[in-house]
Amino acid sequence: MNLKKEIIEIARQAKIASRALCSLKSKAKNAALKQMAKNLIKSKSFILKANEKDLRKAKKSGLKVSFVDRLKLNEKRIIDMADSVASVARLEDPVGIMERLTKRPNGLLIGKVRVPIGVICVIYESRPNVTADCIGLCLKSGNSVILRGGSEAMNSNIAIFDVLNRAAAKMNLPKNAINMVKTPDRKAVDALLGAEGLIDVIIPRGGESLIREVTRKSRIPVIKHYKGVCHVYVDEDADLNMAESIAFNAKVQRPGVCNAMETLLVHRDVAVRFLPSLAKKLIDAGVQLRGCALTKRILRNRTIKKAKESDWPKEYLELILSVKVVNNLKEAIDHISKYGTSHSDAIVTENHERAMEFLEKVDSSSVYVNASTRFTDGYEFGKGAEIGISTDKLHARGPMGLEELTTYKYVIFGNGQIRK
Amino acid sequence: MNLKKEIIEIARQAKIASRALCSLKSKAKNAALKQMAKNLIKSKSFILKANEKDLRKAKKSGLKVSFVDRLKLNEKRIIDMADSVASVARLEDPVGIMERLTKRPNGLLIGKVRVPIGVICVIYESRPNVTADCIGLCLKSGNSVILRGGSEAMNSNIAIFDVLNRAAAKMNLPKNAINMVKTPDRKAVDALLGAEGLIDVIIPRGGESLIREVTRKSRIPVIKHYKGVCHVYVDEDADLNMAESIAFNAKVQRPGVCNAMETLLVHRDVAVRFLPSLAKKLIDAGVQLRGCALTKRILRNRTIKKAKESDWPKEYLELILSVKVVNNLKEAIDHISKYGTSHSDAIVTENHERAMEFLEKVDSSSVYVNASTRFTDGYEFGKGAEIGISTDKLHARGPMGLEELTTYKYVIFGNGQIRK
Repeated sequence: MNLKKEIIEIARQAKIASRALCSLKSKAKNAALKQMAKNLIKSKSFILKANEKDLRKAKKSGLKVSFVDRLKLNEKRIIDMADSVASVARLEDPVGIMERLTKRPNGLLIGKVRVPIGVICVIYESRPNVTADCIGLCLKSGNSVILRGGSEAMNSNIAIFDVLNRAAAKMNLPKNAINMVKTPDRKAVDALLGAEGLIDVIIPRGGESLIREVTRKSRIPVIKHYKGVCHVYVDEDADLNMAESIAFNAKVQRPGVCNAMETLLVHRDVAVRFLPSLAKKLIDAGVQLRGCALTKRILRNRTIKKAKESDWPKEYLELILSVKVVNNLKEAIDHISKYGTSHSDAIVTENHERAMEFLEKVDSSSVYVNASTRFTDGYEFGKGAEIGISTDKLHARGPMGLEELTTYKYVIFGNGQIRK
Repeated sequence: MNLKKEIIEIARQAKIASRALCSLKSKAKNAALKQMAKNLIKSKSFILKANEKDLRKAKKSGLKVSFVDRLKLNEKRIIDMADSVASVARLEDPVGIMERLTKRPNGLLIGKVRVPIGVICVIYESRPNVTADCIGLCLKSGNSVILRGGSEAMNSNIAIFDVLNRAAAKMNLPKNAINMVKTPDRKAVDALLGAEGLIDVIIPRGGESLIREVTRKSRIPVIKHYKGVCHVYVDEDADLNMAESIAFNAKVQRPGVCNAMETLLVHRDVAVRFLPSLAKKLIDAGVQLRGCALTKRILRNRTIKKAKESDWPKEYLELILSVKVVNNLKEAIDHISKYGTSHSDAIVTENHERAMEFLEKVDSSSVYVNASTRFTDGYEFGKGAEIGISTDKLHARGPMGLEELTTYKYVIFGNGQIRK
């Protein structure tokens, strides 16, 4: 009960801070961001020491190597973190931009203006640089932020937060503009999810189970993606060299991320020419293939497993790939509709009409023609950084940057108009 | 259990229809809308007969006169309904509009394109014209729609739906593009709220208790407003004639709606000059005033009640007005932050700086300078019609028209780009 009260008090103070933040000048926000970047560099050894504690604990409890790697900080990673915060200072401030101003017949001027959302709560796992990224993006977009990192990175997160918070105080940011819940008690998360009316949006980042739990329990709107089952479709009129390069990149360049390809779809007219060479490359790179019956027949390779029905909706996040030969574009689109997760899907084709049909009918947040799905990322989209990726339908889709951390309001200028 | 299955099947069919609707040409949608308008006119007597049944039932069960009035249809109201549907045909189609196209250093072209949301479910009470409005707006914005009207208007709603559905079939709209749940069983609502993954958004329209129930139970995102506690603040530099005209209009012109004023805030330096004349007019118009201590002292009118703490957050929806004298702009903004509902709030002032401060700091969906709050309405904002008003923070705020019934996706044009 005490913890719940404590969390509600944090949220209440964050709400008060958000009222001051919404009218803070870009100049003040940018100065604070630059100071934060500076402090990160100055406090490298302080942060690394805290990170050491988390690493020791992680190794003791036998966590996976890939997990420990994501947790690990070093000089270079701290410099990158500082660069990232400093780069947010250089991005355009979305707050106050008037997107539209219309004049009504009665003389009313109705403007649609970008405003901060209010209080953003980010619940995340492992990578400590998320702490700095979220603080930077929320501050620049005029929102106050409440962070709740995973217990496995608690020491690192607290160290980074404290460094940034000292910069915030030095630059006279509104008190409680940035906040961190520093207890590993999981009841803290429940309390955050119940702070309706104080917290405006919850952004969970982490594994699917975390995100499902947050979504199920929250009374506050959640922006999220569960997983990314991304497809590349190689059309009958594809440039097959390009298709090979894209498919290889989408699977192999970084298989553990949500925008990596999990299923390759190939038009049957090019399957015999296309699949053998790509399959060899993939297998050489350590990829395990799971193919449909036709794929297996074409490749005649014993190491290729038969894809089961349960493989099509799978997000492998490792060097495994489902492969299916389809009869036409419609079958490819239907497959993506059925098994995809509205994340990122690509077509490789030189045929304009089918390219446009794919763009129109595939209902994903990011739909590609002739490029790798790996580009779905705030930085790659020109947003500077991202606070997450959304596969929801409302508010924000795809990579979310500063603009997606704002909403709008209508401002109406009159000179005495009354309703008749 | 059978009912639940039935509802899920409706949602599933609506989802399939939405895939065809999203690429339907504007011309086809407009032709269908015009046919719908025509059919409404042709079927006037059919609709009126059904409405008669609802009216008889309503009178028998002793429903309020204002309620019966909203339920009642006549020739004029059906013609208005048809006009409204026809007017949606003339609005710009938001689907396919590319809001932004950026070129990245690697040559990728990244476009942000408006697309339909998918399947919209509207749960509403009483007024039967909502049936036609929602169908028109959802169709034009490329969404399929599932309607669930109140049992009190069931016969009228079904009649209107059937008329429009015949037009849809005649014009070869995708099957199940428009849908109505025709049972009064309240379990149908629960089934709709659980159709996650099939229905993309729920829009409840009606009394606060309906909206609270829907929000509490739904696993699908809900866009809503609970209530409108709207304020008019009369600044010390207000044109007092204008202020009187705006305050009178905002309270009296149509007190039963969400954008009517419920609380008047007056700067103490003008209260003595401003309040007596306005109070007289309001009282003559049948308004009951509830004032703060200072208001009562200024007005010296025994009919004026003392405003209690519980009056400030009240949405009267009738001829009652809370009145408070404040010391300055900050106090007015703080009052609105504390008791307002983020709907519509206005300042009356000739002082530019305070006008801008009010616009910036009042966190409502629609913030006015020198105009009546009564203008918060899709038609008045130039949206042609509205599917509802949102006081939420995400996706849509204020009056929601065609654009707010769409979302966006990113379309990325490459020529072989891979991630390095």
